[in-house]
Amino acid sequence: MARHGLDDIQVANQVIGATKIGRLLDLAEYLGPTGRISCAVDSLAGAAALSAACVRRGVRLGVLVEVDSGLHRCGLASVGDVAALSRAVMGLDGLDLLGLLTHAGHAYGAKTPEDVRRIGTHEGALLAGMAETLRRGGIPIGTVSVGSTPTARHAGEVAGVTELRPGNYIFNDMTQVALGVASMDQCGLTVLATVISTPAPGRAVLDAGAKALALDKGAQGSTLLQGHGTILGKRATLARLSEEHGVIEHQGEQFVIGEKVRIVPNHACPVVNLFDYAWLVEGEKIVGRVGIAARGKMR
Amino acid sequence: MARHGLDDIQVANQVIGATKIGRLLDLAEYLGPTGRISCAVDSLAGAAALSAACVRRGVRLGVLVEVDSGLHRCGLASVGDVAALSRAVMGLDGLDLLGLLTHAGHAYGAKTPEDVRRIGTHEGALLAGMAETLRRGGIPIGTVSVGSTPTARHAGEVAGVTELRPGNYIFNDMTQVALGVASMDQCGLTVLATVISTPAPGRAVLDAGAKALALDKGAQGSTLLQGHGTILGKRATLARLSEEHGVIEHQGEQFVIGEKVRIVPNHACPVVNLFDYAWLVEGEKIVGRVGIAARGKMR
Repeated sequence: MARHGLDDIQVANQVIGATKIGRLLDLAEYLGPTGRISCAVDSLAGAAALSAACVRRGVRLGVLVEVDSGLHRCGLASVGDVAALSRAVMGLDGLDLLGLLTHAGHAYGAKTPEDVRRIGTHEGALLAGMAETLRRGGIPIGTVSVGSTPTARHAGEVAGVTELRPGNYIFNDMTQVALGVASMDQCGLTVLATVISTPAPGRAVLDAGAKALALDKGAQGSTLLQGHGTILGKRATLARLSEEHGVIEHQGEQFVIGEKVRIVPNHACPVVNLFDYAWLVEGEKIVGRVGIAARGKMR
Repeated sequence: MARHGLDDIQVANQVIGATKIGRLLDLAEYLGPTGRISCAVDSLAGAAALSAACVRRGVRLGVLVEVDSGLHRCGLASVGDVAALSRAVMGLDGLDLLGLLTHAGHAYGAKTPEDVRRIGTHEGALLAGMAETLRRGGIPIGTVSVGSTPTARHAGEVAGVTELRPGNYIFNDMTQVALGVASMDQCGLTVLATVISTPAPGRAVLDAGAKALALDKGAQGSTLLQGHGTILGKRATLARLSEEHGVIEHQGEQFVIGEKVRIVPNHACPVVNLFDYAWLVEGEKIVGRVGIAARGKMR
């Protein structure tokens, strides 16, 4: 199989289970000795399983120890636990300890841009500080990797941070706008929908519901968002979604049956995941189509 | 193209816009003169566009006038409006007025099984009553079609109702259990997930998040559901979903990294829509695979 100019692939997640580890190591073989593939670990059990598979396959895998910087999802919280797992990884065949990784996704629960900044600065400082502590203990931490579109600009200003992993920024969405991270004209993904019903005053119905716009209302307890996306050029609220319908509430705005509207969704990522293709447009002109290759491939 | 034993296809929704009408009438041609295809209408504009397209294509289309029985989505609320649109449809070429249709989806906001019964009985009585009124006015209403898995058994007991359109019942889910509509052992769809992290006491993390389980917490303002699905055989709450992670909160329950768990989702329908295949199982044995043909096809 020909390589396509890929040098490094990082899976910023725990890879657990024989099937997934097998697919990860297929990628390691595909990259060959000049590329490097890595994933996160936060348990000795996970690291040991990766090591055993690497030895069987005769490949090497980079590993980043995941740190919990406040999201309370995956990752170890105490520097002692992080150091202990890092040392354990150093002793496991087939694995290369690359560094530390965290994701301050709790920034999505922030109420103000100042909260976002505070969380981002903490994310960077916590990880850079842990890296320094580990290095003083003789653990060779290279990569110090932080993440999330809201926090990247803040965490990235912290000395010692070597890698940013924003993802949503490629499109942005109403969540980023609400957090003060992006402006409306920096939102690059919209859902095109058709008005299919105007059955009562103040109500219009779209042919786009939760299967087109997803139900995200802001993560981590956020209360910043109103409705299920912003309808461009209209004074109206996309108040309710059912599977195939979006119900608009308005006060005298004009909606005509058959009219098409564009919606900036609350969260662009799951919207992309709902479609087989994204269409590239310049104004109203379609200039290309991109397949959503990875969606629906969970197994 | 060979027909596959399809006699009647009903699209219980407004079909608006040239592309969608074109696809609907492709189906009408596919069925040929012995089958019948129908859709809902709730506006003269929508009905007129269908009529014009039918005339151009030389096909006939069945039409059901949609009534709002309390969901306040599509559909006309007053019997006067329903009668007027029905008469208008009778005068449009290419269309056959079949009857009336409603969907009491507001039953999903019910707090008790008694609420569900009340809403379902009202759904049936309202539509059957409107049908009788229209018939007395000389409008030939045949089909009296009600919907929704929670209300079907109640609306279906009302004299004059001729058609039930439950959908979710094929799988059921935690929403139906919470409403008292189904028992746990009547839930036929589960999501198989792997424990990928147990980073802190009382917390375990799955490799199934919103892209596997959807974010539904019960429609129409329901507050009956706790968490994002039920983990079979565990005393634990699936407390938070991010895109690729599900965070479990528990008090001393055992979760081992690499362990697989089965989750009955809150809402089975959008879960099916997130995958390319559903796997048929008998116990732990896979006995078949079914493609999710229609997902991702919105356009």
